[in-house]
Amino acid sequence: MPIVVQKYGGSSVADPDKIRNVAQRIVKSHAKGNQVVVVISAMGDTTDDLIELAHKINDRPDNREMDVLLSTGEIVSSALLTMALHKLGYQAISLNGPQAGILTDAAHSKAKILKIESDRIVKELNAGKIVIVAGFQGITQDADMTTLGRGGSDTTAVALAISLKAQVCEKLTDVDGIYTADPRICPEARKIKEIAYDEMLELTSSGNKVLHIRAVELAGHYNMPILVVSSFNDSPGTLIHGGDSMDSMEVHNKVRGIAHDIDVAKVTLTGIPNQPGVAAAIFEPLTKAGISVDTIVQNAFKDNITDLTFTVSRGDLKKANDVINSIAKNIKAKEVVTDAKLAKVSIVGIGMQNTPGYASKMFSALSKAGINIQLITTSEIRITCIIEETRVKEAVLALHRAFELEKD
Amino acid sequence: MPIVVQKYGGSSVADPDKIRNVAQRIVKSHAKGNQVVVVISAMGDTTDDLIELAHKINDRPDNREMDVLLSTGEIVSSALLTMALHKLGYQAISLNGPQAGILTDAAHSKAKILKIESDRIVKELNAGKIVIVAGFQGITQDADMTTLGRGGSDTTAVALAISLKAQVCEKLTDVDGIYTADPRICPEARKIKEIAYDEMLELTSSGNKVLHIRAVELAGHYNMPILVVSSFNDSPGTLIHGGDSMDSMEVHNKVRGIAHDIDVAKVTLTGIPNQPGVAAAIFEPLTKAGISVDTIVQNAFKDNITDLTFTVSRGDLKKANDVINSIAKNIKAKEVVTDAKLAKVSIVGIGMQNTPGYASKMFSALSKAGINIQLITTSEIRITCIIEETRVKEAVLALHRAFELEKD
Repeated sequence: MPIVVQKYGGSSVADPDKIRNVAQRIVKSHAKGNQVVVVISAMGDTTDDLIELAHKINDRPDNREMDVLLSTGEIVSSALLTMALHKLGYQAISLNGPQAGILTDAAHSKAKILKIESDRIVKELNAGKIVIVAGFQGITQDADMTTLGRGGSDTTAVALAISLKAQVCEKLTDVDGIYTADPRICPEARKIKEIAYDEMLELTSSGNKVLHIRAVELAGHYNMPILVVSSFNDSPGTLIHGGDSMDSMEVHNKVRGIAHDIDVAKVTLTGIPNQPGVAAAIFEPLTKAGISVDTIVQNAFKDNITDLTFTVSRGDLKKANDVINSIAKNIKAKEVVTDAKLAKVSIVGIGMQNTPGYASKMFSALSKAGINIQLITTSEIRITCIIEETRVKEAVLALHRAFELEKD
Repeated sequence: MPIVVQKYGGSSVADPDKIRNVAQRIVKSHAKGNQVVVVISAMGDTTDDLIELAHKINDRPDNREMDVLLSTGEIVSSALLTMALHKLGYQAISLNGPQAGILTDAAHSKAKILKIESDRIVKELNAGKIVIVAGFQGITQDADMTTLGRGGSDTTAVALAISLKAQVCEKLTDVDGIYTADPRICPEARKIKEIAYDEMLELTSSGNKVLHIRAVELAGHYNMPILVVSSFNDSPGTLIHGGDSMDSMEVHNKVRGIAHDIDVAKVTLTGIPNQPGVAAAIFEPLTKAGISVDTIVQNAFKDNITDLTFTVSRGDLKKANDVINSIAKNIKAKEVVTDAKLAKVSIVGIGMQNTPGYASKMFSALSKAGINIQLITTSEIRITCIIEETRVKEAVLALHRAFELEKD
């Protein structure tokens, strides 16, 4: 029997009614003759509530203990969903990360899956059971609980799909696919039927929240197709896959989608004298503090002095600022300036890589809308502009129109 | 270094402030030069909330899945308490049941501890850490999570204390000891300094909720002293121990305390014809359904017909009624009557066993208060009367006075 791995997010299991809906949805897939493995997130805002609770007790909680705490959220929803399947008369069993054989490294709060020992899952599937796996978690070789970091349940699902040689990994969520832009701020946004891993990666890293980037990377690496569909309706979704059966190159020869992200904060060090090792002196302590730096921009030196700006997520700004202030004197920087109210807008498309003119068209569209560009970064298939947060919606609308994304 | 096991109940960790208090309390014991192992319950009403949530999804949830669900409550509080200790500058680590090596049988929802493999706890203690263990849970040999049933955290604490050869198992709770009656309904109640395991067992089985009965049994079997103290103040508590250093026999030669319990429901089968195997036909299916029967009373046969009454906890009444109705026809009972609004009051004291007159004094005190006795049961050191729930407070007060328990 074909194996299907389904992943349901926290909004799909936010309350008992929604959990019942999810159970019915699972049963549908089971009735088609699939062996079904379900990866489940924590209910609704559970994870945020637990984080808030921890911070009431310790403003810098230990990562190991945070993992102990947060991993309970997915365990709760896995048990409840299993009970809902029992109620419908189906055999089902919940497994936590350790029981599902998800072995990780010991990098608490952002652990990486080392391997999956799927014996228990296979045993339960072969016994005719639907298997509900608590997402987002695993276990170290020292038997300590780990979490894979935010969005890690997507990674759990893809990793299990690969390990179990599943037919497809289905991501069921509160949107019914990947759109050319966020439909909440861009009413003209259009659903994309199929998209390549690389494009999805860029959209994801640029602020599209439908999938976690590690899940897309992993799926791409092992060529595991991901189907993004709604958990609330039967609308056809978006298939993320390897590109062999992609839309024609003509369709590709353009911008595929626009992503935006308001979780952007900026740190600028001004007046840094030119000396060897400056960049290392700045970014090594940030890495050690576990801070992920997104964009880095350094101006050319002028009179042997330069400014350096980098962006981080807003949640990391305080820590990044602490780190930078502790080293600013060492590297003789003049001052440290931060701004937490930024955003980025990006255009993404494989077709862009061999075709000039996309950047200038983007800058001109933003300029016509009166939007000031603070920083620019690009990849092969993406151009990103960092702007003020308040202008995001206008920027997305302007770009969607400029690149005519409302047309199929 | 001496090892002390402390157990904190759910009310002691109901919110972040209380968790901080508990952390400070732990630190005090640690500062005295003890190696401290703490067993922790779920915060406040967490367990009840989770049970309610489960019942919204499935009115008869699977025991294995309930264990998966409920065990998260203690894990949450163990992580939070550990964070609070870190905040105070102490080394601490949380361990769940499996990590603490608590191996149980597979009787989900009421598992029994088979053995404790305490290597991990010992390793962490020797590394200078305070060890916080999630109570109430263990793991089967098939790596499934189990819970020890309600109050199971007490059992965890005593079992760990025995396994670690601790000096004492301290039960820190919202009352500061064992009283001659519940002080909330009997203002004259007096704190008992020391009490024997047997007396505590009877008080516990008769409704005193301070300790779980299995914990008292286990402690008695291995002669592990339990100290009941308040988690909120430094008032001296009650020491439960083996009796060698007990109060003088004179003090013992009387009623030691009064317990009451309003969690009593009754099922009566009327008009049962005399035939072999009737009792088995009634109680075997109840046992199979996992229902614990408390008191059983059967009248003498008259014209080869009798009535049989038994009591169960109110939570089991619906299930018990279902079971009994399914067999009532088989055993030719006339009707099945239930009453959910009962209570029991008990007097307990080792001194009672060789001294006549306690029963009659008890019945007379209740009679003078105009309280009707529905059922009576006795043990060597206890007499219990089942009465209407509404009369409990009057009954406890009347008995406390009749046996002069306000006097030391």
